[in-house]
Amino acid sequence: MSKPATPVAPPLKDELDIVIPTIRNLDFLEMWRPFFQQYHLIIVQDGDPTKTINVPEGFDYELYNRNDINRILGPKASCISFKDSACRCFGFLVSKKKYIFTIDDDCFLESEFGLGSVICMSVNCRDEFSLFAGRGGAGVSFGDLGVNGPREYAKKKFFVYVAKDPSGKEINALAQHIQNLLTPSTPFFFNTLYDPYRDGADFVRGYPFSMREGAPTAVSHGLWLNIPDYDAPTQLVKPLERNTRYVDAVLTIPKGTLFPMCGMNLAFDRELIGPAMYFGLMGDGQPIGRYDDMWAGWCTKVITDHLGLGVKTGLPYIWHSKASNPFVNLKKEYKGIYWQEDIIPFFQSVTLPKESTTVQKCYIELSKMVKEKLGPIDPYFTKLADAMVTWIDAWEEINSPAQSAPAADAKKDGPSSKKK
Amino acid sequence: MSKPATPVAPPLKDELDIVIPTIRNLDFLEMWRPFFQQYHLIIVQDGDPTKTINVPEGFDYELYNRNDINRILGPKASCISFKDSACRCFGFLVSKKKYIFTIDDDCFLESEFGLGSVICMSVNCRDEFSLFAGRGGAGVSFGDLGVNGPREYAKKKFFVYVAKDPSGKEINALAQHIQNLLTPSTPFFFNTLYDPYRDGADFVRGYPFSMREGAPTAVSHGLWLNIPDYDAPTQLVKPLERNTRYVDAVLTIPKGTLFPMCGMNLAFDRELIGPAMYFGLMGDGQPIGRYDDMWAGWCTKVITDHLGLGVKTGLPYIWHSKASNPFVNLKKEYKGIYWQEDIIPFFQSVTLPKESTTVQKCYIELSKMVKEKLGPIDPYFTKLADAMVTWIDAWEEINSPAQSAPAADAKKDGPSSKKK
Repeated sequence: MSKPATPVAPPLKDELDIVIPTIRNLDFLEMWRPFFQQYHLIIVQDGDPTKTINVPEGFDYELYNRNDINRILGPKASCISFKDSACRCFGFLVSKKKYIFTIDDDCFLESEFGLGSVICMSVNCRDEFSLFAGRGGAGVSFGDLGVNGPREYAKKKFFVYVAKDPSGKEINALAQHIQNLLTPSTPFFFNTLYDPYRDGADFVRGYPFSMREGAPTAVSHGLWLNIPDYDAPTQLVKPLERNTRYVDAVLTIPKGTLFPMCGMNLAFDRELIGPAMYFGLMGDGQPIGRYDDMWAGWCTKVITDHLGLGVKTGLPYIWHSKASNPFVNLKKEYKGIYWQEDIIPFFQSVTLPKESTTVQKCYIELSKMVKEKLGPIDPYFTKLADAMVTWIDAWEEINSPAQSAPAADAKKDGPSSKKK
Repeated sequence: MSKPATPVAPPLKDELDIVIPTIRNLDFLEMWRPFFQQYHLIIVQDGDPTKTINVPEGFDYELYNRNDINRILGPKASCISFKDSACRCFGFLVSKKKYIFTIDDDCFLESEFGLGSVICMSVNCRDEFSLFAGRGGAGVSFGDLGVNGPREYAKKKFFVYVAKDPSGKEINALAQHIQNLLTPSTPFFFNTLYDPYRDGADFVRGYPFSMREGAPTAVSHGLWLNIPDYDAPTQLVKPLERNTRYVDAVLTIPKGTLFPMCGMNLAFDRELIGPAMYFGLMGDGQPIGRYDDMWAGWCTKVITDHLGLGVKTGLPYIWHSKASNPFVNLKKEYKGIYWQEDIIPFFQSVTLPKESTTVQKCYIELSKMVKEKLGPIDPYFTKLADAMVTWIDAWEEINSPAQSAPAADAKKDGPSSKKK
């Protein structure tokens, strides 16, 4: 059971897109070059579309700005958030690949409410790394940047670094996500030695044999060393808390259990679950922020549960070096913090009809329930429910067989810039 | 959230019993002396009651053999297994403490079917330790035994050792269990950074604040380094597999999810869940073995879920150095392996009535369901269902206020030997 059903190497080079939402030059890719360069990138440029985004040499990418989104989706572009990293889901929509890996360049949080500054708790990342490496060996990696690399990077405010495992080896986050996605999940019964498909592990005594085939894995949720993904109140209360613990495990989140999905370091099987990976309405003109990935996670989990698919969490880690401004975050989050007390019981009570046999059908059913059950809380949810339907319409349109064919109108559907 | 509600030190010295089932001298306690000596032990002697069990000097214990069990329980003694470590639950019954920690001396598996030998895969534990320590630093500890200690211990066939964490520090398994039990569980929503009550951790963004109080923890399930707890078929297929991975995490098994509970390294809150910790009918005269802890785990989980209590798994590790004979195990397990395909769906479908507000009431309801739903599979389940009722009768009798009073008839209820 320790070997994945499909060999992991070569790691799906032609079957995976890396989706990165950004508002600025993508110099942070330098650090990820050894791991990303052979993959295709889909860059979703947020904010001012007249701004030119520089992508380091040698990467194969296509870039979409707001003008592209409006041109490609027409009126349906209303479902794609503006001035919020939630816009990333446009990249999921236009990808033609089976797998998606999405990672933050992590510079959105300060822009939305017009505040120009970032609180960077760890400007001198190298010092922090030394401290941390002393504790357990896991830390941040600076690749081939040389001795002054980290300091330079810190100056430039890059915040999502390659992490190191406790042996000091750079973590290839993408390879671990691929491993997670290519091996089954175990949502129906808990295995106490965690992922049974991993080398050196298996199902323990008492695990029913009929369940050992597992379920296809739809989502791989990776974690973060250093700055934990806390909400604003927790950030305010514990400004100095760091996640220093490298937990060497991947596990399946059991069927029927919801979790807070973070979009910072996330991979999924687009064919299995893509249409559920809608990041909602956030940012410009919306009353809420920082709930885009949460929303996608809750919707995704009830749909994977319904369709018998699996969601894993744990490895791989990335190194997150920025603590975003908790005051800004509080402003974005406070309605969400209030609303989630109703949203969670709602999702916990969702039962999708047997007839919903595709992700699209599930999602449309879910949108109706959102409108009916959450609409009374705030008009926002009615708008969100409508946007969910628009999203599925857009998905169907963009991913119809005609559109997927190479002959599709490149002018209408293509990015504003691309490079091979 | 990182501090437990109740201070962990001093670690419940007067509120916790250590229950050890055994068939032989308890020299293995030497290794655990630094951790166990200040606690009270309840030793349940299995097999021939005329045999004298030696307990190392300096331990505070009471010892019950089969004659004691028969004398104390009378006809109800039929619910306590003979020639199987399942007899340990008698210790849970007669304890007067709030918490129980139970650990194997791990020498039962070869006795039940009359086979006298043990396959010890790692007689020279020290060599194995060196190899392992090189990999990640976690390993087995030999306490103050001196250089020749491990070899001597290995000769004596002791199999449950003190493990070491990756920093090389001996793991105080009991202290970790206490920490697990004294901090809440989070069964209603998954926290991606694992136990949020641990130092350096908390609830992540998107975790509803109303759920952060958690639930009282009823069970703490610890794991094993080196020999994993595999069933006979997996043992046969992977005789050389070792668990070398120290996963530095404690997590709550979500509500509605079953797990395979191993009794080798287990602690629980006896007041919260004690009556559900019945290890069933195994061993002498029974068609099945090695399902005692599994049975207790499945019953316990549906009852904790019903009563809003939590079950944790993960840390602490013990070092398990013995691979028991897979052929013997197969003989014990094969009916269980077959039956569990029906048992698991049964437990997954159990819904206890709202009126069942105590563990005892839940357990009686469960026994009725077992008789009705599993009885048709094999007469064994009818017998087991009856034994479940007998167990609760015995629990009520032994734990009635009159019996719990110091004035209780010591001659009738006391152990055959005890030492302060």
